[in-house]
Amino acid sequence: MRYELYYWPTIQGRGEFVRLALEEAGAPYADVARTRGGEARLLALLRADVARPPFAPPILKSGRLLISQTANILAYLGPRHGLCPADESGRLWTHQLQLTIADLVAEVHDSHHPLAASLYYEDQRREAKKRAADLTAERLPKFLGYFERVLERNPRGRLHLVGARLSYADLSLFQAVAGLCYAFPNAMSRLARKLPRVNALHDAIAGRPRLAAYLVSTRRVPFSEEGIFRHYRELDP
Amino acid sequence: MRYELYYWPTIQGRGEFVRLALEEAGAPYADVARTRGGEARLLALLRADVARPPFAPPILKSGRLLISQTANILAYLGPRHGLCPADESGRLWTHQLQLTIADLVAEVHDSHHPLAASLYYEDQRREAKKRAADLTAERLPKFLGYFERVLERNPRGRLHLVGARLSYADLSLFQAVAGLCYAFPNAMSRLARKLPRVNALHDAIAGRPRLAAYLVSTRRVPFSEEGIFRHYRELDP
Repeated sequence: MRYELYYWPTIQGRGEFVRLALEEAGAPYADVARTRGGEARLLALLRADVARPPFAPPILKSGRLLISQTANILAYLGPRHGLCPADESGRLWTHQLQLTIADLVAEVHDSHHPLAASLYYEDQRREAKKRAADLTAERLPKFLGYFERVLERNPRGRLHLVGARLSYADLSLFQAVAGLCYAFPNAMSRLARKLPRVNALHDAIAGRPRLAAYLVSTRRVPFSEEGIFRHYRELDP
Repeated sequence: MRYELYYWPTIQGRGEFVRLALEEAGAPYADVARTRGGEARLLALLRADVARPPFAPPILKSGRLLISQTANILAYLGPRHGLCPADESGRLWTHQLQLTIADLVAEVHDSHHPLAASLYYEDQRREAKKRAADLTAERLPKFLGYFERVLERNPRGRLHLVGARLSYADLSLFQAVAGLCYAFPNAMSRLARKLPRVNALHDAIAGRPRLAAYLVSTRRVPFSEEGIFRHYRELDP
């Protein structure tokens, strides 16, 4: 069966966490809005009169199922593609980590849009500077330090968050770190000394054959100042 | 088996979504940090050298399982207490709604703390005014209008988000609406005309026997300006 992913075509955004899982799994999927006429199909789906409407992309179509909310999509894909443990306690733990990554990602987004997503960055630059300073000084050490601790305490493997095998939470942490290194290279370089395991996980994921091929392909949308992880020099002194 | 809930004792916060599910289920639980010496036990748990450490409260202890992240706890409790459908598609849909409520709740929190959770409200009042104006003008109509649409399209019952029966998503939407009515009475009153089903769901939940008893009990922490839903007159003109 071929999945259909519906997500904004010009940004990595939250859809990227789903793309990484599908790519690593080698699962056949169409990135619908990036195909010819596909963006109209995404917009039509958002307006469709379905009984269980999605609030926002990403949306995964799997057979007759329409699944939305990034972490929910990953909780669905995980057990199907060996991207999380099969037992309940392992599934809950993986999902818990994913939801914590989602919280981090939301905070990163708000660092350049502290007042309103509907306003331009340029109209909230002064406030973004304050919020980004708090993000890099307080929140990144807290979140990334937490994941460093999780890796340190994992008795079965220090390159994986969950047990001895790859999980979708590893892929998502890779993406968060990659995004943060793009957006805040100076802050991340100052933090590097305290995050040896997080950075080793990032590198190990980037080197996995399927991921490495994906990351240099045209299927990987580049980072940009339209996405969640944006590089503004003034926010990363 | 008796659950143990670990959450900050003086606020409703995110723990309240878990409390509501446990109360409606009639499940035996200890609200640990609200018992004598319990806050020290919460702090000790946050510092404990466990293999799967929680990032933040709420934390649910169920036998040997330690589960964290509000939506994750609810996904665990739901099938055990009849608070969501048993089939996969129904569980995914309920969780999807819960994650959307979680997004709304995070935005409400940031309306009074747009610059940093670590700063006092008083140090970001000017920015809070802008963010709260966007919340009430743009985000609340978008989020609550979405849930109104979900209720409208539910073929099996307009007082429930999922099928014909109560789910934890209903309880969480109740809590979000109750909190918003506390924090933004003027904005919510202006929106009321467009949200007949959302408000009817709120009232129906408040009237359920177990919930009604809980809401007037001392187990329900009152709303306050320490929690997520805060009433500041200047943010709700």
